Amino acid sequence: MTEATISTTARTELKRIPERAHFDRETVYSIIDEAMICHVGIVDAEGRPVVIPTFHGRDGDDLLLHGSAASRLLRTARNTEVCVTITLIDSLVMARSAFHHSANYRSVVIFGVPEQITDDDEAGAALDVLVEALIPGRSAEVRPNTRNEIRATAVLRLPINEASAKIRNGPPVDDEEDMDAAVWAGLLPVNTTFGPPVTADDMRVDLPPSPSAANYGRSQ
Amino acid sequence: MTEATISTTARTELKRIPERAHFDRETVYSIIDEAMICHVGIVDAEGRPVVIPTFHGRDGDDLLLHGSAASRLLRTARNTEVCVTITLIDSLVMARSAFHHSANYRSVVIFGVPEQITDDDEAGAALDVLVEALIPGRSAEVRPNTRNEIRATAVLRLPINEASAKIRNGPPVDDEEDMDAAVWAGLLPVNTTFGPPVTADDMRVDLPPSPSAANYGRSQ
Repeated sequence: MTEATISTTARTELKRIPERAHFDRETVYSIIDEAMICHVGIVDAEGRPVVIPTFHGRDGDDLLLHGSAASRLLRTARNTEVCVTITLIDSLVMARSAFHHSANYRSVVIFGVPEQITDDDEAGAALDVLVEALIPGRSAEVRPNTRNEIRATAVLRLPINEASAKIRNGPPVDDEEDMDAAVWAGLLPVNTTFGPPVTADDMRVDLPPSPSAANYGRSQ
Repeated sequence: MTEATISTTARTELKRIPERAHFDRETVYSIIDEAMICHVGIVDAEGRPVVIPTFHGRDGDDLLLHGSAASRLLRTARNTEVCVTITLIDSLVMARSAFHHSANYRSVVIFGVPEQITDDDEAGAALDVLVEALIPGRSAEVRPNTRNEIRATAVLRLPINEASAKIRNGPPVDDEEDMDAAVWAGLLPVNTTFGPPVTADDMRVDLPPSPSAANYGRSQ
């Protein structure tokens, strides 16, 4: 059975503001699941960093990534160290001094070595998880992937073994000497909304937006 | 005078779908300026990738990054290769097959070696640029940074010399054999909105939200 808390390592320990760190899977997974995209860091052949944005999904305790079998991300990232970072900005924190401006955010970092899924059936199932992660309900609205489509896509599986969440959530924190200043302070919420759906011009069948589009939302 | 187009390098050339690549500074800068955060990739002492989310600003042809002088990002990123990636998701592209699902997005990658700004006045001016990039108008609402505040912050300057934008913008593109399927296809717009401002509970002066908060928006 998987432990509910992820063990801390030198890479995931927060040294500066440790109270912002979270290692329980529930918190880490809630951020992974709410986020639409992640940023994948790899080291190129010359030892230099490359950061690529991509969609992700979660299959239990594994993060799934995918892309064209021909893509740089997929060619480079399999069987080598990656860092996947996921970031949600909840609000801008406006303090009485510029110095104390900040953001309320929830982020996750996952370190590890992804493996490519080579079994067609397993890769096909993983692609369904990825579609569902991006657009819940969509995989039942479209036909199944063909074997050629599955083979044209590389799917990577990254166990969530070395990971942590980092969360700031609270009001501005100002220095006492600024508290009487006539400066407004507070939070400016940052919201992500979706829709309304825009139907493709080349539809040959007259259909309203499917439920997955019409009712789209991400857990918040 | 700076050229209006950034020279392509092996790292910024798009090999798979070259029509999505843009190298004109106007396009690259519009994405940098609209985005609130970036993801900075570095290579750690063991040669492994680390990706850190942070705010950014742009000062002409330079990207500015900042953080606590004690932060890992700042300690590691100065005078070493970084990759800064900025991503805006404009819509989800819902095709008639799962395989052709995609996103309309605008992203930028910048490669280079940031230098720390060591002159106090220059660092102070750069911090003002960073505050203005995040919250236009805010720097005039708050007192100037003190010298100690400037020295507690490390500000890095990364020339935008090796960079490119990547843009997908368009309807779903399906295979001809799926075009008659009774499946809704189209775009699901992804929107970022801000506000309404939430005033801090510990305000000692009764003030309405400042203009920078009340009228907040990012160019779109």
